[in-house]
Amino acid sequence: MKINIGIVGYGNLGKAAEKVILSNKDFNLVAIFSRRAVTSKFGTSVEPYENYILYTKKIDIMLLCGGSKSDLEIQTPEIARHYNCINTFDTHKKIPDEFVKLDEICKTSGHIALISCGWDPGLFSIVRALFAAVSKTSPLTFWGRGVSMGHSDAIRRIEGVEDAVQFTVPNPDAVRLAKFGGQAADIPLHKRECYVLAPKSEQRRIEAEIKNIPNYFLGQPTSVKFVDRLELLKLKNKLFHKGRVIGTFMSSPKVKHNLEFSVKMDSNPEFTASIMSAYILAVSHLNDRGFCGALTPLDVPVSFLFKKDRLELIRQFV
Amino acid sequence: MKINIGIVGYGNLGKAAEKVILSNKDFNLVAIFSRRAVTSKFGTSVEPYENYILYTKKIDIMLLCGGSKSDLEIQTPEIARHYNCINTFDTHKKIPDEFVKLDEICKTSGHIALISCGWDPGLFSIVRALFAAVSKTSPLTFWGRGVSMGHSDAIRRIEGVEDAVQFTVPNPDAVRLAKFGGQAADIPLHKRECYVLAPKSEQRRIEAEIKNIPNYFLGQPTSVKFVDRLELLKLKNKLFHKGRVIGTFMSSPKVKHNLEFSVKMDSNPEFTASIMSAYILAVSHLNDRGFCGALTPLDVPVSFLFKKDRLELIRQFV
Repeated sequence: MKINIGIVGYGNLGKAAEKVILSNKDFNLVAIFSRRAVTSKFGTSVEPYENYILYTKKIDIMLLCGGSKSDLEIQTPEIARHYNCINTFDTHKKIPDEFVKLDEICKTSGHIALISCGWDPGLFSIVRALFAAVSKTSPLTFWGRGVSMGHSDAIRRIEGVEDAVQFTVPNPDAVRLAKFGGQAADIPLHKRECYVLAPKSEQRRIEAEIKNIPNYFLGQPTSVKFVDRLELLKLKNKLFHKGRVIGTFMSSPKVKHNLEFSVKMDSNPEFTASIMSAYILAVSHLNDRGFCGALTPLDVPVSFLFKKDRLELIRQFV
Repeated sequence: MKINIGIVGYGNLGKAAEKVILSNKDFNLVAIFSRRAVTSKFGTSVEPYENYILYTKKIDIMLLCGGSKSDLEIQTPEIARHYNCINTFDTHKKIPDEFVKLDEICKTSGHIALISCGWDPGLFSIVRALFAAVSKTSPLTFWGRGVSMGHSDAIRRIEGVEDAVQFTVPNPDAVRLAKFGGQAADIPLHKRECYVLAPKSEQRRIEAEIKNIPNYFLGQPTSVKFVDRLELLKLKNKLFHKGRVIGTFMSSPKVKHNLEFSVKMDSNPEFTASIMSAYILAVSHLNDRGFCGALTPLDVPVSFLFKKDRLELIRQFV
């Protein structure tokens, strides 16, 4: 029997999720919920966001495809009261509180909320935990070259900035050092390339302000380039991204080991949607077993990502 | 409270496991069980294999460090009748049957047998399943450069061979093609370097026999070099190894994504022992929750590899 899916949010990620779900014969895409009046070129029914409440008998799992900044914190609790759901919440500092809040809601509503289920957080979270468990050290994570939404948003909040996009670029010296097994306080892990649209008269002040935003840019090599509207639009349409997790450890003197996990994607939204889609079966399995509550990908064994029985899984993957 | 560990087998892997367990303050190494009369340079008590039966009140988890070929198939069922245990069983074709047999034994004895828990099978099994779930394609695995025990054994079984070691070397063309997203029937994934000790008069026949062993060498680029006893010993002492899993997929036309997991180790036994050690806590957690039966690493969520609570895990890894 097919699993009935709903998608909340119809930006880049929502559109990617629609494609991925439509291409999978295990799933039936019931509806998309959006706050904007939009239509789907694939003919999927698009409903106003508020109508999500009408589908409790028709949808098994909702994929929440809004942004972390404003949408997910509001929508996830609302949806989790009525549906099993998966999101990609990535505001790192807030994840534990979100988890606690959603766990309570889900324990009451009898649903599952699988949160932070993209590539980072998500696949990378699993890999960091696995590397740490084996190596007893903390692996390092590198992102890029690719757009960081959080850093782009931080620039946009500066007065006078009309629009901006920030590319995160790993520092090759830091990558090399990580493979060797180290990290040096004076070698930054990343460089920050900022592209900003702003009036000429404001540019000097804006550049200085960007470089002084603590946690985001202060103390990190940051370049700021002012570009026109068209160029910025082109840059904002770059959907590629990359990332890797590197773990290095010694099991005894002079005996060194490396673990590395890397991803490279042409489209961040389509890659992310493929991961969310992969976890639908896990939510379904857990729901069938009567589990309810909040989860992260750390809690899900990979065997739950399949319909196959255990011996088939062993034959194929072990 | 510390977890009490026993080690069965005191070859390369057993010795590596001893080091890893002794260096971890969560564990208490109770005894090593060996069929040979050996002593530990770290002062660990070494008992005859048969005495394993005397420690049921003193040991919580046994690490089975024998070889797949003969030891593990005999020892794992014996040990699993009395203890929770972890092995690295890697005779691929036999893993499903081993799993079924051990699951039955463990369900009766009330224990857990976590099998095939090294780097491959083990970490690589998890990664292959994860990549396949996300990509809906089959990832490719490459090993080497490093010694393959199975292939070395296959050579040693040939009449006239006094000793032999085989290095598996990935074919760079096949690796490149895998990253691009393909596999060609006429491009072998690996090359096979064989080093053999045998009398001069037998060498021509032996070389021909090696190259014709089906499944192992036939149809694969295989080089055979005859070496003297000293050189062979040196080669057999090479403990380094490498490997990687590559997954490539398209989420829509022209939109390609790569996933890659790679490991590089100075010592295969120490790396493998570090993985077995990482899964001790998982067996312990599952045992505490009353689970019994056979498991593979596919069944274990990474959150079970830690003593930390869920919010701490989220803060550190998600």
